[in-house]
Amino acid sequence: MKRLSLLGATGSIGQSVAKLLADAPGLFRVEAVAGGRDVAALAETARALGARFAALADPAGSKALAEALSGSGIESGAGPSAVMEAARREADVVVSAIVGVAGLAPTVAAFGAGRRVALANKECLVAAGTFFMAEAARTGTEILPVDSEHNAIFQALSAGPAKDVETITLTASGGPFRRKSREEIARATVQDALKHPNWSMGAKITIDSATLMNKGLELIEAQHLFGLPADRFEAIVHPESVVHGLVSFVDGSVVAGLAVPDMCVPIAHCLGFPERIGTSCRRLDLVALGSLTFEAPDEVRFPALALARSAMVAGGAVATVLNAANEVAVAAFLEGRIGLYGITDAVAATLDRINGGPAPASVEEALELDAQARRATAAVLPKFAAKAS
Amino acid sequence: MKRLSLLGATGSIGQSVAKLLADAPGLFRVEAVAGGRDVAALAETARALGARFAALADPAGSKALAEALSGSGIESGAGPSAVMEAARREADVVVSAIVGVAGLAPTVAAFGAGRRVALANKECLVAAGTFFMAEAARTGTEILPVDSEHNAIFQALSAGPAKDVETITLTASGGPFRRKSREEIARATVQDALKHPNWSMGAKITIDSATLMNKGLELIEAQHLFGLPADRFEAIVHPESVVHGLVSFVDGSVVAGLAVPDMCVPIAHCLGFPERIGTSCRRLDLVALGSLTFEAPDEVRFPALALARSAMVAGGAVATVLNAANEVAVAAFLEGRIGLYGITDAVAATLDRINGGPAPASVEEALELDAQARRATAAVLPKFAAKAS
Repeated sequence: MKRLSLLGATGSIGQSVAKLLADAPGLFRVEAVAGGRDVAALAETARALGARFAALADPAGSKALAEALSGSGIESGAGPSAVMEAARREADVVVSAIVGVAGLAPTVAAFGAGRRVALANKECLVAAGTFFMAEAARTGTEILPVDSEHNAIFQALSAGPAKDVETITLTASGGPFRRKSREEIARATVQDALKHPNWSMGAKITIDSATLMNKGLELIEAQHLFGLPADRFEAIVHPESVVHGLVSFVDGSVVAGLAVPDMCVPIAHCLGFPERIGTSCRRLDLVALGSLTFEAPDEVRFPALALARSAMVAGGAVATVLNAANEVAVAAFLEGRIGLYGITDAVAATLDRINGGPAPASVEEALELDAQARRATAAVLPKFAAKAS
Repeated sequence: MKRLSLLGATGSIGQSVAKLLADAPGLFRVEAVAGGRDVAALAETARALGARFAALADPAGSKALAEALSGSGIESGAGPSAVMEAARREADVVVSAIVGVAGLAPTVAAFGAGRRVALANKECLVAAGTFFMAEAARTGTEILPVDSEHNAIFQALSAGPAKDVETITLTASGGPFRRKSREEIARATVQDALKHPNWSMGAKITIDSATLMNKGLELIEAQHLFGLPADRFEAIVHPESVVHGLVSFVDGSVVAGLAVPDMCVPIAHCLGFPERIGTSCRRLDLVALGSLTFEAPDEVRFPALALARSAMVAGGAVATVLNAANEVAVAAFLEGRIGLYGITDAVAATLDRINGGPAPASVEEALELDAQARRATAAVLPKFAAKAS
């Protein structure tokens, strides 16, 4: 039995993990689960999985969690140190599914020789990728990407040595504005932007899909995960979201990872790795789909891609700033304070203010730079308020 | 430098191998080349590749070959024993690209501990697959499939253990009659059948693509190569011939091998394996292609698929008989003696006559059964002559 800990147990990825674990009885023993604020959901998940320890990030929930778990024999704790303990407890695989920069410290705390970290947190790579990957290598931790694109590429990379890779391609659905003009996108409402064609996700990532910033951030993540020069990575638009990633080798072979657009599959891959676990995830049916289409992304209508690409080329602190700025700008868009192009405008303006600098060399440096960038974005936002529709 | 021998050097695959070797100077030292009857082509290839030994299958060409190679320092020989010597000479990788059952004995002769055989000959697997794979395992030989579909699957299988494979899917272009009715196919001329949409190949295999027998034979090959039960293999029609094969794992992940429809790529993969060699093979451009389509094969219009599937389920001698019968029937179609459905009718009638029996347990048994089946098909052919157009 593999020992598993699940950080971010009450979120969307965490609940998908819990469902897969319930469907694979006898394969895993759950050591720890950690959640943010939802005491009832965390207690229920801890009981359902038979976890030994449950940690709540919110220190105020300490007593409520202990009560909710009373009689279960499950230990509990609350506050950041409890989450860190959940991350550090003995486990073969730790699923890192805490959302945002809050996931960075616990994920690094989970590192250890021979451990596998199934990574669903984007910020570890986007905000602190250089430090994060170096620390994983130093500690002998293997990072398994949960994100469908990176997971597909991880699987495809089995087919040959990394030195023989010519190109790594991530696909993008193109989002709800794939066929819209720049003028239409400029006038898009929050509701328009939240209509993702294929994936059902949270609001922030759905907006990132509409601007293609999500793909930009994923390109940055891929660069850290797979350790190749920036110019080896590309994004193509594939509206059906069935081919998630492709690896082109120097001999002309292309190996691709495919699946239905459902996180069930990449999560299951990470849980089973290096074996596979049987699942009831929906199966891909190419005949039923009939056709798969591909087109080039348009960096004029979607400037986020070019911003991300320049962050990849520049390296250093740029991606950390870009990520924080984007988060603040997306929140402003969701509040109706700026228009959709206000997001990339605000990111670019923030990058103009905080320019260069070395990549964060620790969790603390990453958090500090993140906070600094957020303040800078908040300061530039009013400039773009006029552009809101 | 890898030591390489090339059997079938003057054929289409052999010449593609020679071109790739010329484009990758310093990576390979060519030990032996073997050809059938074309003295000039064999001598030219042997000189171009700097081979140490050249073998011609036709004993009558002995003197001419020696003359054509005079002054080159390349040893030569003629007749079947010379071809066997070419196969047996010290090499790290032997490319088996002799066409037809003639390739069986030299390919098995090339087996040896630590050797890799890049297999482009279909008959080794279709006519003698059980024996062939057992012999490869016994001798410690690794078989690398050159055929684009099997090569794609071989690459995709790197992503997980064979025990965790749910389905292996080979794609078929659908051939020139994909959109034709049964009546139209029944009236098809030789010229109609030779118009393959994507691949430029020899007449026999082009007819096999028109009947989908080629895909049926490839399913049989795949069963032997990848060692899974018959019901794990399927064929789907994919007119663009870009996705060549797919492996579906039990967790719902699908890993696929893609490339332009050009043998350059899978040959290069086999030459470089387990590394990759850089090539100037045409690159896949999904954006330029725009879309990839998939449909279910129609076993009513293309009964060859059902014949092949029953051979996979039955095992034993059935595939050997099916292959030989098909070869005789295709030759009769190319000579205008039977119609297109006469091919599968003659194969079915042959299978009715030679029914069951164990799988051939040696090269000799395979050749004997092959010859017996050919005689039986020749005997049943006149029954179907009336159906020729």
